[in-house]
Amino acid sequence: MAERTHSTLMSRPIHLNLFIHGRGHHEAGWRHPGATRKALTDISYFADLARRAEAGRFDSIFFADALELGAGARHVASGALEPITALAALARETTHIGLIATASTTYTEPYNLARQFASLDHISGGRVGWNIVTSWVGGAGPNFGYERTPEHSERYARAEEFVQVVKALWDSWADDAIIDNAATGRFLDPERVRRIDWQGDFYRVAGPLNLPRSPQGWPVLVQAGSSPTGKAFAARHAEAVFTAHLTKASAIDFYAELKQAAVVAGRRENDIVILPGLSAAIGSTDAQGQALLEELNDLTDIDVGLSRLSNRFGGHDFSALALDQPLSRDDFPDPSTVQAAQSRAAVITDLVARERPTLRTLLRQLAGARGHFTLAGSPERIADEIEDWVESRAADGFNVMPPVLPAQFDIFVDHVVPILQKRGRLRREYEADTLRGHYGLARPLNPHFAA
Amino acid sequence: MAERTHSTLMSRPIHLNLFIHGRGHHEAGWRHPGATRKALTDISYFADLARRAEAGRFDSIFFADALELGAGARHVASGALEPITALAALARETTHIGLIATASTTYTEPYNLARQFASLDHISGGRVGWNIVTSWVGGAGPNFGYERTPEHSERYARAEEFVQVVKALWDSWADDAIIDNAATGRFLDPERVRRIDWQGDFYRVAGPLNLPRSPQGWPVLVQAGSSPTGKAFAARHAEAVFTAHLTKASAIDFYAELKQAAVVAGRRENDIVILPGLSAAIGSTDAQGQALLEELNDLTDIDVGLSRLSNRFGGHDFSALALDQPLSRDDFPDPSTVQAAQSRAAVITDLVARERPTLRTLLRQLAGARGHFTLAGSPERIADEIEDWVESRAADGFNVMPPVLPAQFDIFVDHVVPILQKRGRLRREYEADTLRGHYGLARPLNPHFAA
Repeated sequence: MAERTHSTLMSRPIHLNLFIHGRGHHEAGWRHPGATRKALTDISYFADLARRAEAGRFDSIFFADALELGAGARHVASGALEPITALAALARETTHIGLIATASTTYTEPYNLARQFASLDHISGGRVGWNIVTSWVGGAGPNFGYERTPEHSERYARAEEFVQVVKALWDSWADDAIIDNAATGRFLDPERVRRIDWQGDFYRVAGPLNLPRSPQGWPVLVQAGSSPTGKAFAARHAEAVFTAHLTKASAIDFYAELKQAAVVAGRRENDIVILPGLSAAIGSTDAQGQALLEELNDLTDIDVGLSRLSNRFGGHDFSALALDQPLSRDDFPDPSTVQAAQSRAAVITDLVARERPTLRTLLRQLAGARGHFTLAGSPERIADEIEDWVESRAADGFNVMPPVLPAQFDIFVDHVVPILQKRGRLRREYEADTLRGHYGLARPLNPHFAA
Repeated sequence: MAERTHSTLMSRPIHLNLFIHGRGHHEAGWRHPGATRKALTDISYFADLARRAEAGRFDSIFFADALELGAGARHVASGALEPITALAALARETTHIGLIATASTTYTEPYNLARQFASLDHISGGRVGWNIVTSWVGGAGPNFGYERTPEHSERYARAEEFVQVVKALWDSWADDAIIDNAATGRFLDPERVRRIDWQGDFYRVAGPLNLPRSPQGWPVLVQAGSSPTGKAFAARHAEAVFTAHLTKASAIDFYAELKQAAVVAGRRENDIVILPGLSAAIGSTDAQGQALLEELNDLTDIDVGLSRLSNRFGGHDFSALALDQPLSRDDFPDPSTVQAAQSRAAVITDLVARERPTLRTLLRQLAGARGHFTLAGSPERIADEIEDWVESRAADGFNVMPPVLPAQFDIFVDHVVPILQKRGRLRREYEADTLRGHYGLARPLNPHFAA
């Protein structure tokens, strides 16, 4: 059932995902005149973005998520729609583009999650992906009965079992389980539906699921944690990976390591699509792109940046550091002790060790896209960089994170997309109807039922 | 914020909800030529029904739910979309009609449920209702880590606290919490958002919720359990009640009792809209309606009926009873000992004591609508009965449960609705934009924040 998504003219097609986040990924993007004035609870704002991404022939759109109202909400546009309900609505606004929602393995029941994602996959006709997260934010645990958010290793142990349970639930119906014979009165073949009777360390789930196997078999499994544990998890389960790199060299290392790990885990290199984040400030010229980025950085607030940096390091207090003196790695906790987002903490401490920025400079750098690759320039410049990363095997495409929404995304679609299409790197028309088709991923076989 | 939904010409307006269930409520409805051939995972089937209900100026549509694949699936069209995701999609297919989804207090986290329903209310522009259930089906518990489904009293104790938690979460933002001032960089007023710091017997939830208070403040709270515990719960919390009665006399008693209980609980009679189920087999004449019902009953299967009856009584085995001898109450367990749906079990044993049907006859009666009121006749006959129940204070309207979908619902909209409109009982145009508006319910004040 794997579908080829690009003509053979394109040796390395580029996959593009639109990461929808507030009114833009730059911390101060919401204050820019190019940002929408619509509320983040207005589905029409997201519907416009989804249709725009579809017009630009993107593979997919994506919502991140956090199970708390962060302290940053005071100074950053926050409080958006819940991703699963938002995606269900957007499924009816679009016809081809993939739709990826984040949901947590730490704070949901596998039966409920398996069911809602299967339902989304049916509603969208096979266009759904699940971004698997363990929810690192410190405020999440106390919203779900925990004194504090469970530690990194426990969250991942639970996630491993959780994913196995939901896969078993998705495979609890054969694709042909429904007979639907009105004449005989037989609706379902009981031989083609099975209990799973899962008994694990964290979960006991009898099954079967209460709806049929979905068009894609499973939604596309997406993952974004890049800690050692996160990478091992991705090698086993992920079919698309969102990842943050401040340099191409770091992305090349990650790409080679993860593809190799997937092969070691018994999979093929092409079974994982790797999409680093890219936040591009685009102007008519390189200078104008740079000016936009400066304009955005000038709108940031030191306290907001400090609070976000503290969150990244599990609540560590950086406020005593001088703003305008070079930092060193010693100013930061060891990333491997951080119980929140370990890999992002490592990206930041590596940057500090390499560049010795002042705290003020660091906060401006992180304001762009929270540790993702940022770039400023003309559409040609952006297209060149995208092509270069893909040719260099730093990426299979990008997680596109416009600093200001929708203005900077409109510019991407109107000016960067045509360049990539002209170069034969990006589809002009969709050749598949499912997200698996766009990403070139096979539909999972159901091991419990012969076809 | 309460809105008048009907002109003063109408002393007792009639509220109508379409209960969408499989391919119709009659157990054998899916086998009838008037039933859709579409899959129950095809959102276009539900979208057509929702638009049709909106054209008929119904107050709302409603999805029931069960967190298991019941044994009946073998012989009854089953395996439909998950209600929350389905409603989110339907919100974009409709503009005025209310949208009610069932969700369980026993098997979900309050933070997740509060958030998804608030999100639905935003997406739909204030048209959502939550049918609060404790999930009586025996197969649910083992899908969520329980040896067996928790007992009736424990489920209701948990539900009571659950509802208090989600109300607190919905009220954790003042309606005017968002400042959204790009010039000053202030997005949220921290004085207008509060933690809830809930510490109860079952739940600990810090809050606040991570999205703003929704258009209706809370979704409309709907309830359908009619056991003594269920009625007490409804008196405190429910704003609309779905209930099953086989006779008008029983409905009148229930109506008076529940309205009185609401007043005792400090509410007003009009704060609860009571909607008994009505499954009408409609023909051009009364005889043709009756013939349709017979045709459907002839399509039923004794084993399916026995299995469903057993489910209603928590797994009790009725298969040893003779099919064609009069039953007595002694053939049934005491309903108050049933750990599943107590009130429905009581409806059935009362019927048995009153009418002494044979098992075969009883199964045919229950095949119609599982213990709800069934009726066969012409559109005039159906409209008369509806008006009579409402005039008799047996109902504020009906939970319309067509035996065959969509054919019997099309007939209801084309032939029963115009009669009710002509009699001034049913709106010709929507006068409100929210479900609260249609039902004549006030928007809840937020006790934590002065307006």
